[in-house]
Amino acid sequence: MNIVLLSGGSGKRLWPLSNDIRSKQFIKIFKNEDGTYESMVQRVYRQIKKADANATVTIATSKTQVSAIHNQLGENVGISVEPCRRDTFPAIALATSYLVDVQGIDPEESVIVCPVDPYVEDDYFEALKRLSDQAEKGEANLVLIGMEPTYPSEKYGYIIPENSEKTAKVVTFKEKPTTEAAKEYIKQGALWNGGVFAYKLKYMLNKAHELIDFTDYQDLFTKYETLTKISFDYAVVEKESHIQVMRFAGQWKDLGTWNTLTEAMGECNVGDTMMNEKCENVHIINELGIPVLAMGLHDVVISASPEGILVSDKEQSSYIKPFVDKIDQQIMFAEKSWGSFRVLDVEEESLTIKVTLNAGHSMNYHSHKYRDEVWVVISGSGLTIVDGMEQKVRTGDVITMQAGCRHTIKAETELKLVEVQLGRGISVHDKQKFPLE
Amino acid sequence: MNIVLLSGGSGKRLWPLSNDIRSKQFIKIFKNEDGTYESMVQRVYRQIKKADANATVTIATSKTQVSAIHNQLGENVGISVEPCRRDTFPAIALATSYLVDVQGIDPEESVIVCPVDPYVEDDYFEALKRLSDQAEKGEANLVLIGMEPTYPSEKYGYIIPENSEKTAKVVTFKEKPTTEAAKEYIKQGALWNGGVFAYKLKYMLNKAHELIDFTDYQDLFTKYETLTKISFDYAVVEKESHIQVMRFAGQWKDLGTWNTLTEAMGECNVGDTMMNEKCENVHIINELGIPVLAMGLHDVVISASPEGILVSDKEQSSYIKPFVDKIDQQIMFAEKSWGSFRVLDVEEESLTIKVTLNAGHSMNYHSHKYRDEVWVVISGSGLTIVDGMEQKVRTGDVITMQAGCRHTIKAETELKLVEVQLGRGISVHDKQKFPLE
Repeated sequence: MNIVLLSGGSGKRLWPLSNDIRSKQFIKIFKNEDGTYESMVQRVYRQIKKADANATVTIATSKTQVSAIHNQLGENVGISVEPCRRDTFPAIALATSYLVDVQGIDPEESVIVCPVDPYVEDDYFEALKRLSDQAEKGEANLVLIGMEPTYPSEKYGYIIPENSEKTAKVVTFKEKPTTEAAKEYIKQGALWNGGVFAYKLKYMLNKAHELIDFTDYQDLFTKYETLTKISFDYAVVEKESHIQVMRFAGQWKDLGTWNTLTEAMGECNVGDTMMNEKCENVHIINELGIPVLAMGLHDVVISASPEGILVSDKEQSSYIKPFVDKIDQQIMFAEKSWGSFRVLDVEEESLTIKVTLNAGHSMNYHSHKYRDEVWVVISGSGLTIVDGMEQKVRTGDVITMQAGCRHTIKAETELKLVEVQLGRGISVHDKQKFPLE
Repeated sequence: MNIVLLSGGSGKRLWPLSNDIRSKQFIKIFKNEDGTYESMVQRVYRQIKKADANATVTIATSKTQVSAIHNQLGENVGISVEPCRRDTFPAIALATSYLVDVQGIDPEESVIVCPVDPYVEDDYFEALKRLSDQAEKGEANLVLIGMEPTYPSEKYGYIIPENSEKTAKVVTFKEKPTTEAAKEYIKQGALWNGGVFAYKLKYMLNKAHELIDFTDYQDLFTKYETLTKISFDYAVVEKESHIQVMRFAGQWKDLGTWNTLTEAMGECNVGDTMMNEKCENVHIINELGIPVLAMGLHDVVISASPEGILVSDKEQSSYIKPFVDKIDQQIMFAEKSWGSFRVLDVEEESLTIKVTLNAGHSMNYHSHKYRDEVWVVISGSGLTIVDGMEQKVRTGDVITMQAGCRHTIKAETELKLVEVQLGRGISVHDKQKFPLE
């Protein structure tokens, strides 16, 4: 089974756990049996590998997410990096080309494309296998999954099939309707469109060459920025007459708001939390190192992270976006491929952060024009390179770096350090990278 | 006017803004006209000085509060420091002795004793002046203020006066009653006992010598720890037949819970906060440097500080104490006479804090047995002394101190530094102080 997971944007609707560089799919919120937590992307990846240990999984995403993906899924997962956002058709064309040209998959094989963030059970992946098999048969150019609707939702597009067979020809698609129209569609046997579909690689490759002038993956990647933004629906689906749909009646949830996310959480508390017995239907997700105490609340979600604190009635939480858009704050926490960082203190002419480097990993070799830096190693051991000079470091060592000086640190064991940045105009953009000499 | 303000204990009921070393009276929560904030103790002190610019104000408290008092009221306020807690009679005896022996006040003068934390208006201090004058007349040994009850409260003790005159002899006192009993008392003309009273200094000095064997203030201070715990009510009030009460009908609020405190706050938001229009009767006090967003909440108080985060229905907030008792966490923030500190990061074998020294102030000269320390000056300038060696320091300077080394820093301007503590068994108790050589 070949599967492309579309890993989308910034997800402000789950602020403060998601931000411009941490999308909701990376929040570790689902408790495993062993007491650890996994994110949406880790859960889906684990479920895919359970359904098919040999599945080729490729994540189509922007470069801002690459670090977080490697950090959460390891180095072996395929990533089709979009150099910039160009809507769904260019993204799918690029991922398809990546599978054939980089991963070397036979163009006769099929591939499944689906969002990275549905909350589903194992039966969903069994359905994906059948979808893949159906696409490989070649009866249709596109095969979609249609979710059996549980209520006349206004949130989804609808698929109208020819009949009520398990696999049926698609007659037409309907955009997100009113509740009234949705009821009517459901009477006619309509299904929710969850954006899950499969096709033969060669079919999509031909489509891509029809619409875009490129030779191979590398060429397409290079000229990606010049491509016209166009949706997959508009470019392909609306013009395609050979489309089938396969019914799926299992659990399928879109965890896009705090309301739906907390329903799926399983337990009410993550992190250091307390609740009195007068709390009802309260969920607390606390990523800060200090306790959260809730008393006498009903139907409330509390979410605390280094970015901020949300306390919201669950229904009201779906109106969060305009408020979060107003927040103009630097990123306070980020996961990177090499580890993570967290802002500890912000002053006008200094910034103090805590950096955790995973064992064997290092930062880029880089310099800053407008700031000095001081590192204090607080645990672990490693190697610093400062202006070409190598030095072993361990807990308690202090490294001072003047503006302009090139520096990096490599962790032997997991290594934590406190970094104090000093200067006027401290900015994430003040960074020049160099190859190691 | 001589006034002794009794500044009480830890005030866990206003967690997370109050903690073992920051009592509720030091929380800056009342907005001034110029946009700054003042604490209960600052407000009361300002109100006293407005009523009587020459008032002698003495704060009777434990040594843990001395730093915060100097920090908020300056160096000129009198402080009668209780070496340990020994209930109200020893505390009042010590403060009385302090006024006579240290401040040199004539024992014929009267003094008013009252709690530091009532939320009152200017008329309250006019009533205190009348109380002081009445005590000086010598018609009674103790003169109390009786608050006109506004409802049959179970929270207060009651004073039963002989008649309904402005100033009347006290017939008897009643402990906190049931609502039914309170109604009955109020019918009889009873008044609330707010713990506000006045006496001539020599009266209390005589009482103190009757019950405690001591020569003068210094002697009493030295043997304070050996004194028996005994309340002022039990030791003095219950045995005294010459007591008067003066009626007071102005505003008098006890801001002991989040519910009553938020009522007095004036505005709903302190710090970086946002609320949507569906919030009703919501108060947010945010001392963290990250935004708090509230949506669709009713009758809720949100309080966020370096110690933790409370989200509570206002009524329920009065049941907070047992939950806070369970929290076993180090102090994350404290105001000191020399400035303040805040914990930024806690690891098993390191602790990172931010220290702010006020201009002209310095730490104690001290050493640690079990930890090394690193200072990074992030703003300001000053002078370090490390094992007797003086050195000027300014922004960007790094000072490393091995365990055992004696060190201090004196701020010329306001000076901020990041301190990284490194070692096993980091503890506030690992500190030895030295005189400067």
